[in-house]
Amino acid sequence: MGGAKFERVAIIGVGLIGGSLSLEARDTGWFGYVTGCGRTTPNLEVAKKAGIIDEYTNDPVEAVEGADLVILATPVTSIVGLAETIAPALKKGAIVTDVGSVKGEMVTELEEALGTDARLVAGHPVAGSEEFGAAAAVKGLFKGRRCILTPTDKTDKEALELITGLWQTTGMEVVEMDPFAHDRIMAAISHLPHLVAYALVETVLKLKESEPGVMDFAAGGFHDFTRIAGSSPEMWRDIFQLNSDAVLEILDSYNQVLADLKDLIERGDWEALEKTFERSRSVKVD
Amino acid sequence: MGGAKFERVAIIGVGLIGGSLSLEARDTGWFGYVTGCGRTTPNLEVAKKAGIIDEYTNDPVEAVEGADLVILATPVTSIVGLAETIAPALKKGAIVTDVGSVKGEMVTELEEALGTDARLVAGHPVAGSEEFGAAAAVKGLFKGRRCILTPTDKTDKEALELITGLWQTTGMEVVEMDPFAHDRIMAAISHLPHLVAYALVETVLKLKESEPGVMDFAAGGFHDFTRIAGSSPEMWRDIFQLNSDAVLEILDSYNQVLADLKDLIERGDWEALEKTFERSRSVKVD
Repeated sequence: MGGAKFERVAIIGVGLIGGSLSLEARDTGWFGYVTGCGRTTPNLEVAKKAGIIDEYTNDPVEAVEGADLVILATPVTSIVGLAETIAPALKKGAIVTDVGSVKGEMVTELEEALGTDARLVAGHPVAGSEEFGAAAAVKGLFKGRRCILTPTDKTDKEALELITGLWQTTGMEVVEMDPFAHDRIMAAISHLPHLVAYALVETVLKLKESEPGVMDFAAGGFHDFTRIAGSSPEMWRDIFQLNSDAVLEILDSYNQVLADLKDLIERGDWEALEKTFERSRSVKVD
Repeated sequence: MGGAKFERVAIIGVGLIGGSLSLEARDTGWFGYVTGCGRTTPNLEVAKKAGIIDEYTNDPVEAVEGADLVILATPVTSIVGLAETIAPALKKGAIVTDVGSVKGEMVTELEEALGTDARLVAGHPVAGSEEFGAAAAVKGLFKGRRCILTPTDKTDKEALELITGLWQTTGMEVVEMDPFAHDRIMAAISHLPHLVAYALVETVLKLKESEPGVMDFAAGGFHDFTRIAGSSPEMWRDIFQLNSDAVLEILDSYNQVLADLKDLIERGDWEALEKTFERSRSVKVD
């Protein structure tokens, strides 16, 4: 184990993200001895057998004792409470990071919960799949994706550099961003699209009552939406709860755009509709 | 050429769909001699070189002379006008079919335009890609997809059987449907999702003004939407024009669903939000 960047690591919430990170970081020698922590023992047993962790406990306070790095990879709504629980047990100078899909106010709350003895580097690896749990953990999940770190003026520079390097070894491009800008951007490119996908699927379910044949066609272009809407309901409930301000703001903007499109269709202004379509088409991201 | 089901075929609008169908039907011996017709000669030249057609003309009246089968594969807004133009030149008993994404009222108009000497079988092969033009035509495009035929009480049974067989040889599953039910279903599973994709891309373009960094993240899950919004603006303008009634109806239903979701977020009813997500998730189409 000698020479690992983090000799002792605690991962609280050994799921898809925490598990996949551990697989990568053990492989590249960044992680030494890894303690997993979670509420469901069968999942931790899976993680141990898969070589994600060396040992496990159900007690977060026990998990973080002596850890150089603590990774908070639980559902976003529990991260702050967890930080409050482990704070007194943290080794002085321990680095704490998270992988939550929401930042903003939560970063301030995490800083307050952890105090000055621990060094927080809040982060969000923008990667994932519809799978979850330790059994879904896999190497290569992060390759070519972006990891957003949201340092503040309280963030320790050395800790920031280490966490940047950790994510870079998984093949991620690391970018830094203000915690609230992160939430506005994620609301627009991730959270709103999810809400819209749910709404589209619900709309088709309603139509099914009068047109049962509609379900035979839900496998076409519509399939993209059912796939998105198939993600973990708990995870998305939590994201909407924690990022409701930014979501409601971008939803208003979206509703205005959609109302304008509806207006064009109602008025029969096909030329203006085509121009809107042309503009959207110009957005190339590949 | 002897023994082809359709000895002489005219394809008006030799694009992705018409071209791909011809490639398949020539291969399986369904099509004999094929005349292509369109307004842009370079595209017809491409089609001839690719073996999609044997000869071409820019004049639809000339194209359909002596044809046993006429395929109207032009943009949907021009199909009825085209039918009126070619009607006097059609061979008695010729079968006329189309591949338009909109049916409903258009089928009645086509029946009126063609009169009783030609035999109309209106159809919509639900397949395609973001590519268009004869150069994009390819075998295998229809395999495993559905073709909707929308016969009425005026439809000739033998013609319906022949067109059913034609699409089946391309690997399509052929289903029959009322023309207006077709439009309601397509509005829900294809046209509305396209409108929503455009609206999402427009919303992100608006946010870009205050958060330029948002474009760096448009490659993630958001990519599905930019891909959808990248489709032919003219084609989609035409579809919304011809199917505006059904689109506006399903848009109202969708807006109501989205307003309900917004209400749950504003009220902070996370339990009800999760239940909605659970319901959408139960729609499996794979």
